[in-house]
Order: sequence, then C-alpha cells, then structure tokens
Amino acid sequence: MVNSFPDKINALCVFGSVLQLKGHLVPNSQFGRNLPFSDWSTLWVRRYRYMRPVRSFSFSSLLRCVWGSKKKHRDVPIKKTAMGDSANEQVLAPLRASVKEQGDLVRKLKSEGASEIDVKKAVAELKLRKKALDDRELTLSPQVSFDRAKMEDVLKRRFFFDQSFAIYGGITGQFDYGPMGCALKTNLLNHWRSFFVIEENMSEVECSILTPEPVLKASGHVERFADLMVKDVKTGECFRLDHIIKASLEKLAGSKGTAQDVKEKIADILVKLDGMTKEEMSDVLTDFKIKSPLTGNDLTEPIDFNLMFSTQIGPTGLVKGFLRPETAQGIFVNFKRLLEFNQGRLPFAAAQIGNAFRNEISPRSGLLRVREFTLAEIEHFCDPSDKSHPNFDAVAESELMLYSACDQMDGKPAKNVKIGDAVKTGLVNNETLGYYMARIHAYLLNVGIDKERLRFRQHMNQEMAHYACDCWDAEALTSYGWVECVGCADRSAYDLTQHTKATGVRLSAEKKLPEPKTVTVTEAQVNKGIVGKVFKKDAKAVSEALVNASSDVLNTMEDALSTTGSYDLTVDGEVRRITRDMASLKVYEKTMHVEEFTPSVVEPAFGIGRILYALLEHTFAVRESDEQRTYFKIPASVAPLKCAVFPLSSNAEFQPFIRQLASALKVKNVSHKVDDSGGSIGRRYARTDEIAVPYGVTIDFDTVKDSTVTLRERDSMSQVRIPLNEVPAVVQGLSLGETSWPEVQGKYPKFEQQESTKEK
Amino acid sequence: MVNSFPDKINALCVFGSVLQLKGHLVPNSQFGRNLPFSDWSTLWVRRYRYMRPVRSFSFSSLLRCVWGSKKKHRDVPIKKTAMGDSANEQVLAPLRASVKEQGDLVRKLKSEGASEIDVKKAVAELKLRKKALDDRELTLSPQVSFDRAKMEDVLKRRFFFDQSFAIYGGITGQFDYGPMGCALKTNLLNHWRSFFVIEENMSEVECSILTPEPVLKASGHVERFADLMVKDVKTGECFRLDHIIKASLEKLAGSKGTAQDVKEKIADILVKLDGMTKEEMSDVLTDFKIKSPLTGNDLTEPIDFNLMFSTQIGPTGLVKGFLRPETAQGIFVNFKRLLEFNQGRLPFAAAQIGNAFRNEISPRSGLLRVREFTLAEIEHFCDPSDKSHPNFDAVAESELMLYSACDQMDGKPAKNVKIGDAVKTGLVNNETLGYYMARIHAYLLNVGIDKERLRFRQHMNQEMAHYACDCWDAEALTSYGWVECVGCADRSAYDLTQHTKATGVRLSAEKKLPEPKTVTVTEAQVNKGIVGKVFKKDAKAVSEALVNASSDVLNTMEDALSTTGSYDLTVDGEVRRITRDMASLKVYEKTMHVEEFTPSVVEPAFGIGRILYALLEHTFAVRESDEQRTYFKIPASVAPLKCAVFPLSSNAEFQPFIRQLASALKVKNVSHKVDDSGGSIGRRYARTDEIAVPYGVTIDFDTVKDSTVTLRERDSMSQVRIPLNEVPAVVQGLSLGETSWPEVQGKYPKFEQQESTKEK
Repeated sequence: MVNSFPDKINALCVFGSVLQLKGHLVPNSQFGRNLPFSDWSTLWVRRYRYMRPVRSFSFSSLLRCVWGSKKKHRDVPIKKTAMGDSANEQVLAPLRASVKEQGDLVRKLKSEGASEIDVKKAVAELKLRKKALDDRELTLSPQVSFDRAKMEDVLKRRFFFDQSFAIYGGITGQFDYGPMGCALKTNLLNHWRSFFVIEENMSEVECSILTPEPVLKASGHVERFADLMVKDVKTGECFRLDHIIKASLEKLAGSKGTAQDVKEKIADILVKLDGMTKEEMSDVLTDFKIKSPLTGNDLTEPIDFNLMFSTQIGPTGLVKGFLRPETAQGIFVNFKRLLEFNQGRLPFAAAQIGNAFRNEISPRSGLLRVREFTLAEIEHFCDPSDKSHPNFDAVAESELMLYSACDQMDGKPAKNVKIGDAVKTGLVNNETLGYYMARIHAYLLNVGIDKERLRFRQHMNQEMAHYACDCWDAEALTSYGWVECVGCADRSAYDLTQHTKATGVRLSAEKKLPEPKTVTVTEAQVNKGIVGKVFKKDAKAVSEALVNASSDVLNTMEDALSTTGSYDLTVDGEVRRITRDMASLKVYEKTMHVEEFTPSVVEPAFGIGRILYALLEHTFAVRESDEQRTYFKIPASVAPLKCAVFPLSSNAEFQPFIRQLASALKVKNVSHKVDDSGGSIGRRYARTDEIAVPYGVTIDFDTVKDSTVTLRERDSMSQVRIPLNEVPAVVQGLSLGETSWPEVQGKYPKFEQQESTKEK
Repeated sequence: MVNSFPDKINALCVFGSVLQLKGHLVPNSQFGRNLPFSDWSTLWVRRYRYMRPVRSFSFSSLLRCVWGSKKKHRDVPIKKTAMGDSANEQVLAPLRASVKEQGDLVRKLKSEGASEIDVKKAVAELKLRKKALDDRELTLSPQVSFDRAKMEDVLKRRFFFDQSFAIYGGITGQFDYGPMGCALKTNLLNHWRSFFVIEENMSEVECSILTPEPVLKASGHVERFADLMVKDVKTGECFRLDHIIKASLEKLAGSKGTAQDVKEKIADILVKLDGMTKEEMSDVLTDFKIKSPLTGNDLTEPIDFNLMFSTQIGPTGLVKGFLRPETAQGIFVNFKRLLEFNQGRLPFAAAQIGNAFRNEISPRSGLLRVREFTLAEIEHFCDPSDKSHPNFDAVAESELMLYSACDQMDGKPAKNVKIGDAVKTGLVNNETLGYYMARIHAYLLNVGIDKERLRFRQHMNQEMAHYACDCWDAEALTSYGWVECVGCADRSAYDLTQHTKATGVRLSAEKKLPEPKTVTVTEAQVNKGIVGKVFKKDAKAVSEALVNASSDVLNTMEDALSTTGSYDLTVDGEVRRITRDMASLKVYEKTMHVEEFTPSVVEPAFGIGRILYALLEHTFAVRESDEQRTYFKIPASVAPLKCAVFPLSSNAEFQPFIRQLASALKVKNVSHKVDDSGGSIGRRYARTDEIAVPYGVTIDFDTVKDSTVTLRERDSMSQVRIPLNEVPAVVQGLSLGETSWPEVQGKYPKFEQQESTKEK
C-alpha cells in the first residue's frame, strides 16, 4: 500500500500538499490557521506536518476525491439531520455552490499543471469561501441558547477551574482545577480507563515527562515543532509572525490614505500569506516597514520559536531535555517491551494518560489552548497488511456525523453515516480506524457530549503528514466554534521507523509465513582488528554500517574491492575508504519461517481538558422558571459529586440521620456533600445544582418519625419519598448507570412538596 | 503557641539545630545525610531546612526531651513486638548504652554552654553510635528472606517498570511504568482517593506543574533548595561536595604512607563535615588538593546547585519558571478559593495528586531516588488554637510503631503505642496529626505494606524547619534500609504567611469571637499626591508600607513627625524619609465580631513510587515447593489485574465460554487477561502469579458439560469448582474486599485436581 502511490498524482493533489509533493517544505506554522477555531487541532496538524515532503500515501477515499471520482460515496446511505436538511439549505445553496465552483477550479488548475502561484491563490480563495459557508451554517443551525459569560461566572465562582497563580498575577495558558473540576476530570479519566483500557485489554503505561533531546530529534519535534515569531527590539514583546502581518496589512488596507495599487498588493499578500516561507514573510515586514503595534518599535527578524519547554537534565548542564509535547513517544520507545509483554503478538494496544506541554506564543480561549494539558492516548499496533478489527461488527451499525474531506471541498454538509458503511465504501480507510471512531463517539456521548454538536471531520491532505493515511478529528461545537477534542489517525509505521533509525534498535514485529521460504543472505564479514586500527574511535560506526548495509551496497562494494581494492563507504555523512583486508562477503541460503515487519499504528488521542470544557458547555442549562438558576446536566456517572445531603434545619434531631447516611454513602464509595448551611431548601438545591450534583437527599421532621427521606433528581427536579437506609444503594445504582431515575420513580411514591417545612 | 519559645532553650537544643537557633544557617546539603538510606526523606528534610534560622517552635515532646524530662513517656502503655523484645536485646544492650551515654554527653555539653566545636564533635559521635545500633538492630530483626536480584528480574522481565528511554541509552533517575506497574500505581491512587478524598470529604485540586519564579521565591525554594557540588574542570563531571570530600579523605586516611598527624586531621574533618559551611569545605578541597576520582583533573570551586528544573514560560524568555519540586504550593496559592469553596469554615482539607520534579545530582536506588515522582499530598487547614479532630475517637485505639526523637537519642527501640495514648501524653503533638498518622497507617496496611516492617519515625529537631512543630515519617523497611514513604508534618502557618508577604493578599480565615470586643485601631492616612510626587515609581510601595505598618511603628513615626518633622521608614530594604505632609494618624475604636487568623497546616504527603516499591518488596514471595516460582502477595484490591482466564487447551469448544466470561467480567469492570498461550496450566498459573493476579479461572472439558469452572486463589493455590456465571460477581466481591477467600471456599466445593487434563 504505502509507497505504491502513482507519480502522476503529483500533478493532481489538492490544496497546499501539492507543494509538499513536489518537495517544497511549507513552513508548518502557516498551515491550517484559517480553519475556524481549531486551535488545538494545530497541535495535531503540526505533529503531522513538521515532517519531510510527502512521498507516498494510500488514502483511498482522498485519492478518489482527487481523481474526481466519488461514485462510491453516493452509495452511502445518508440519514439527514438538522444540520443537513431543512429550509436552511435554500439559504446555504449559493454558498455551497460557490465553494464547489472554487473546489472544481482548484482541481482544474492542478490537472492542467497551472503555476504554483495561481494554485495558491485559488486554494486561498477556496478556504475563504469554505469559511463563509461554515460561518453561515453555524448561524443557521438549531439555536442552542447559551450564555458563556453566565457559565464562566459559575465555573469561577464555584471553582471548577481558574487561572493558576492568580495571587501572583497569573500566567496565561495555565489553569488550576478546583474540587469540582478535578473530580469531573478524574471521573472522565476513570471512565476512559474502564471504557478503553479495561474493556479492550489494553496495556497502559506511564512514561517520563522529561525527555532527552535525541528522542525528540528522531520524532522530528526538535527541528520542526515551531512557530515563527518576531520580537519588539526594545520591550522583547513577542508576536506570531503571521498574526502581525495580517493585522498590520489589514489595518493599512482599510486606511483611506492608502493608494489603490498598495491595497491590491496587500490583498495579494494576504491571499498568499498562508503558504509563504520565512524569507517571503520577512520581506513583507521590510517592504511595509511593519512595527510593533503596541509601541511602534522596530521588530526583529523572524525567529523560529520551538514550542517545547527545554531544560537541563542532571547537574552538568550538558544533557538537554524537553517537557514532552505529546505522550505518544513514550509508548513508541517502549515498543519492544510492550510487544514482549503481549507475548510477541499483534495487534495490541498501549494506552497512556499524562500531561504534555507546549510553550504557546499566545494562549487563549480558556481551557482550549493552554501550556499544560492532559492527554489520553492509545497506540494500536497492527500488521499494515491487515487492519481488520475483531470487534468491528459490534460497532458497524453505529451512526456518526461524518464531514469528509470531499464534502468539505464540495461545500457539502456533514452527513450521518453508519461506520460499517463508511469503511465498506472506503470513506474511512480501515476497520481499526473505524472501530476507534465508533468507540470515541460512544465514549463522548456517555460522558455527556451532545450528539447534535459532535462530528468527525476528516483531515484534508494538506493537514496530514505523509505517513498518515487517514485522519479524523472528533469535533464538538462550542461557543468558540468547532473544537477538536479527539484526533484519530492512522500514523502508519513512521514513528517506529524513526526511532529504529536513530537507535539501531529494530522496533519491529514478526509474523509466521504461510510457508517457509528460502532467501539469499548477503553479509559483510568485518575484520574488526584492522577496522579498529584504521578508524579508531569511529571504528564502531564503520563496522555497524558494514554489517547493516543492504545486499545491493555490499555487492557493489565487493565488485569495487575485487577490481580496485578499495571502496568509499559513506558513514554518518563522512566518506570512509574500505580496503580488501577490512571486509569480505558471505553469501548463503537461509530458510525463513517468519517475516519481520514494522507495525502500523492507529492513534486515538483525547484532549481531556477540551472534552471537559465542551461537556460543560453542552450540559450547562438555565431553569425555565428562573434564569438566575443554572445547572449542569452532567451524567451522574461523571458528575463531580453524586449526592448532596440536606438537613431541613439545624435541629439536633437530624444529626444522627445525617451521620448514618454519610457513613453508609462512604461505604458505597458514593461521593457526597452535606449542606447544613442553613439557607432555605430551595436555595440549597440551587447551590448544588450549580455544581452538577445529580441527587439530593432531604432529611426533615418526617424522617425523625418514619426514617424516610426525600430524594430529588437534578434535571427534572422531581422527588420521591424513600426509606433512608435504601438511599445509598439506590444512589450508587443511579451513579453507576445500573438504574435509571424513571425506574426509581416507578418504585417509590412521588413527593410533591415538603410536608414539614417549619420547625415544630 | 508559636513565638512563645523561651530564650534559654538556645543553650539546650540538641544536635545541629543549636547552630540554627544561634542564627547560623547550616548549609542544608550537609544535613541528615548519615541517616541510613533515607534518601527521599532528604526531600522533606530539605523542604523543612532551606528556611531561615530557627526562631521559635512549640514541639512539646521534643521540648521535654531537650529539657531532660521524659516522665510522661514512661506512662505510655508499650506493647512490645519482635523488634523490641527477644534475646536480641542482650546483644543490643551495650550499643544502646553507648548511644545513651553519648546522648547524655551532648545534653550535658549543651547545658554547660560548651564550645561549638565540642558540641559538633559530640553530635557527630552520637550519630555514628546511633548508626551502629541501627545497623546491628537490622541484622538481628526477624530475618525476612528476600532476594532483591530475583525480584528485580521479575519486575524487569514482566515490565512492572524499567529505565526510561533505554533504547537511547537511558537517563538515570527516570523510570517508565509498564502495564503492571501502571495498573498497580493507578489502583494505589484510586484507593488513596477513596480512602482519603471521598471518605474524608476533602477538596481535591489539580494545579499547574510549571511554576513561575516568584511563587518558589516566596516558598524559599529558589534560594535554598540546593545541594553543593564540584565539577571536573575538564570533563564537566559533577560530584556532590560532601560525597567527594568523604570518599577522598577516607581513602587517604586508609593509605599506609599517610602520616599520623594527617590521619588525625582527617578524622577531625570527617567528624565535622556534616556541619561545615561551603567555605570550610572549599578550604578542605584546597588543603588536601582533592582531584576528580575519575580523571585526576582539578575540580571547580563548590557550586550551589539548585535542585529544581528551570525553564522559560512563554516566548519572551523573560518569565523564568520551574517544574514544581512539591505539589503543596499549588494548594497554598489557591487557599482563598478553597476556603470560599468550603463556605469559609475551618477545618477543611485539600488534596492533590500529581508529579513533582527534582534534578538530583546522583539519582540511585531504583524508584527510591528519582527525578520525576508522583506525590499525593493533603493540606489540612485548621485553627492553630484548636487542633482537635472530630473523628479522632474512631482511631484512638490504633496501635502504631512509634520511634520517637527521644528514643532515637537514648538508643532505645521503636515502641508500639496506641495513638490515643501518644496524643494524650504529648508524644504526638495534637489530635489532627495523630489522626492522620493512624489513617496513613491504615492505608499502608490496606494496600499490602507489612505491619512488622512499618514504623513512624519522629524528626529530631535538626531535621525540622522552625515552622514545623512536629513531624513523623512513615518508614518502610526494605532491602535498602528504612525508607520514608509518607511524611506527616505540622507545618504551622509558614507557607500561607510567606505567600501573604509576597503578594499582599491575606491568606487568612476568620472566626467568630465568643463576644464582640472593642479594639483601638491606629491607621496611617496617606497623602498619595505628595508621596507620589516624592517617591515616583516607588510611591506605591511606600504607601503600602505605611498602610500595613503596625501600630507601634505608626506611633513611633507620629512622635518623630511631631517633634522632628520627619521619620525614616525602611521599605524593601531602602530608607525612605517620611515628612509631616505625607501622613497623619487616625486612631479610633472598632467593635470586632470576628477575629482574623492564619490557619495552621497539617500535611500528610505520600511518595507513591516509594510506597509502590516497598509494597513490591513486602509482598514478593517464593513458592516453598519451587524456588524458581515467585509471586507477589499483593492484596486483590490493588493488584494490577484481578483475574486470569485459562482455557485448558486451544480446543474450539472452549471459545464460547471464554467470550462469555470475558464479557461478563468487563460488565463488572473486573480487569482480566485471557492466557490462551498453550503452555501447561501449571506454567500459566506461574506466569500470572509473577504478575500478582490473585484469581485464576480455568475452563476445561467439564465446563463444556456442566458450565462449571475452577477458581484458584494465588497465595494458597487452593481451588474451588464454581458455576461459570457466578464467577464475575464472586471475583468482583473478592477484589473489592466485600468477600474473603475462606468465605468462597465455604460456599463452593473444593477442587483437588484437574479432572480432565487431556483433550478427548
């Protein structure tokens, strides 16, 4: 599959990737920035993009898209939803047509081999039209009444999370989770562990955060995990280069005094900005004499700013290290141990929950773009020639909202598709990828993400690294727009191959051949004594290069040694003269029973902070009766606290019941809070609603008589009367999802009002 | 309490702290190093020691100890254990006497006001005698047969944990947890959360790891969280200064050619080394011409090496930050939010689980001294005048092995004491501290720490910072000696006070006065216009200093202003001349209903990696029948996996039963592993024993007939025959500790041998 990409595709690929295909490396910081609000996705984008030019891929659906053949897609049964149908389509139709027109123009230009700059312009225009369509679509989609300021007030006031070190003035992009945020996050992670690690028998690991430089050199992060920036020469204030050019030129273009030809030049630059090199952008800075917008001071030359936090490991100051920018590399460098732990068999999946760090130039949007964040990643290792999944049938009928790369280019809306059909038609590359997409979908719905505000958006190929053969982001619609919460990518064999190259340790697996096969082995026999004498400290590298040389190289060398007596071998970039006495050739037949191969990796990666934030937005609600009363409809299974206990008053008679209930809840491991603060019951209900407590138990004067209490459900505000000693098991069952509230309502008498509201 | 320390105590304090009391700051890197194997405890030691000279404390039991009065201790009912009684005491008696003799000498010298150097020598000798006693005691204590190499082989082979980045050569002091280690750690933490956070209704938070410099300046870490080291001038190799002096001089003293007077000089230095200043040690380096032991090269001057990893936050390079060296500070800087979350009431406890980092000069001893580690910390905030604990009665009868500071000085062994008695007699300072010690004890036993290898060692006062009024370490006995796993300290109000000073934000609480009281308030009325004109950019600081000045200072100032017309006020170390027109005094009466105070903090802090390691040592066992077969007796509640499923053979008839069981176990959230690898059942049992799986289910030919299976328990290797569909609930009950194995044995028929061991 990989490496079978036809050459002619070079001329046909869409968007910026055509440049990559031709061998130009597009500065990664410039890419994907116009995608609406998808800040964090740029993490992924970057990860897939700081790599060398695209040489090959095998993404069949995109190929079809590129080639203009979309027949199979038409066969996918589409179930329309609010997003796709409705009268709104009339409004959107011209916008869709405009995107499609431009998409077709891009295809045409490419197929005609148009000039690079013409293609660039057309692509930029396509993006603008796509954005206009997306924005309009958002305004038309079923209105979700949401007041962000109101929610943020609750989150801050009840300390779900807040800025770190605020008493010291705070640091942007860093947040502390308070008791409610921390409990919610813990519950999200525990559910993740149970849903993925335990249910799928994954191997969970926990690797170091401090990572030595060579590891991140091999992964490509040291060289290319960077954004371009400029500094105010006097104050040192930093600006993202593309941001400052865009802002300055837009301001200039909008100014009355600017001549028409300058305005045209600016328009041209803004269109091209996204694909400009560092040098081109530097020229723009000079041409337009762009200064700091804050001080008017001069700016430095553009600087590549690596987004990793660096430090020194150990006291010598000589071992450079970084805080890991992703958790994945820890799994890759442990591949051999994990394969062994799984008794040498594939497929297996490893998982890791942990913090990662990136030194954002300008963090923003609350929890969505931060400098420290928790990832939960899965690396599923499988045979590249067999990406089927044993449990795929169990999820095949799951319907997901898919926003394919083709539909994005054609101005079409996202569609509800059964994942089984999506894999069958090739829209989703393989079963394993499809399986994880369905599981991600199920997990997100379980924890409370709104189905109507969740979609899977396929990466278009300019977003993908050459090694990723398909990539879908689970995006949640928030007040910041569509936000990537989970990335699900087929990373192929890239990472294992890179670490193998860097260390010489073969990170590969073996599989039994259907029948043994005989192969001819060509090996170099090295005379280590002579090699050692001649090359001294480099002898080891030379020996290794000889031992690891391919049979082609060895045969060429043998010819040279036999004829001229010497051969020039390039080792680590230096030419070494090998002579006859240093090496001879051994050629023999060998019967192979197993075949060695580098596994492919399918990687679902969850941004926990983003899921948590989207979940808060999706569950935030205001009581119809009183818009000052807000609550979070967070499912009981992940709600921070499961239960609140309210004594009706501070009457001493209630104390034994509170103690009894509290201790029984502890035995059942049901987290709870006693609110004996003395406000009215209504006010206390409202206060626990704000922190999403799903169940409330009220102890009143009837409790003293008959040991029954009121049990109230948060979302419906309905209540039942229930014996005190049955509460812990019932609330536990509700919290674990083993019982539903209607079941409880069916079993216990309805409670209409507080019988004894006053102290007697 | 605090600040009530009598002056004369200066002359009487034991050990090095006398120097601190007199105002000399002992370089902290030198302290506590002779405590056997207690590497990590130096983290705590340091934390308590990088502070300014001791000015006051209120540690009543130590006071008594210092004053020579130990009467109350004798009343503590002592239940002797293996460590204390037995014929061994005869062997130990002379060693104990020798410690006591020296302890008494130290007391005497101090009470007589002997010279500093004489006290130092006596203290050093005391430490040596104490170490000899400790070592002998260890060799005599009930022998635990333990083969560390054998255990390490299992841990590595089955990937519990291993060195990070090994394929890149590895980094010392960094470890990756593999699937079994990670699951065990997760279970330890989940149990911790349920045992402390949920059961005690604590407020759990999750704070940032990257910490800006000012926070750690206030806490004292920037200035004093350091070790002294020297570097090889050519290779850059680093050595801990005290280590290299000791090693070099000991070598020299042992050499035959060394003159007697030199030997005596060396002996003198070695005795004093522990208390030497940086300059004194530098002189030793010069006098003895100490060179690098590896290369013979010259060494640099001693360097203060801060143990925090530093980095830059944000792109400017101007905001210096550190990876936090402890999680506690994140809680302190959030104190106001947490107090508000707890509705302004004390006591409340906040908790945090998270990673901390320290850049060790020479990490060692596996998981015991590492550069990244997970802490689980609790900060219990309470009224300093009331450290009672509402649930103390529930734990008062718990018996703990206590090794008091007095007993350590007197050469006496640790004693079993009921915590209720220990608090009553003042041995443990207060109920809250005692309550947490008992809870720590219960937690450690729950997760599998051996009761006989667990003790609480009280810090002697040279180990304690001036603000700590009592501190006890839970230590586990391992093959590396006694290892501190949990520190439990009363930190008093130090941290909150420091952050208040640094930020001007009052981190305090209020309590209602029993009855309102009238106080006289003296306030400075600042004329900001004039202050601004005169002091310009420093005006704010001057104004604040005036507003915050005590009434004493203000009265003195008023006098000066009235007489001379000016007053010199020191602001941030600079003298500022205040004139009459700048400030006047306002004096008025005010009725106070509440009193403001800075809460005290009791801090139990758990080193999770150390607990995990001690637990592995304590539960590691070898089968009597076969010393090649090893297993871990880890309690089912925290074991990495709960259950293994073994089909007797690869017969296809077993498949439906495996699937049925696996899916039922998943529903119950019981982690399991199917081992269908085909070895003999015995071999497969042994393999799962190695990874501590407590229960094994074997599916055999009788299963096909009657749907029963064999359920085997790891430690006893006993088996019962049980219906397949009852297995999930039974294993779940066993794993949660709701059922015991004997109960299961009572309910189901015993299974003696495999009825059908061969395929039919």
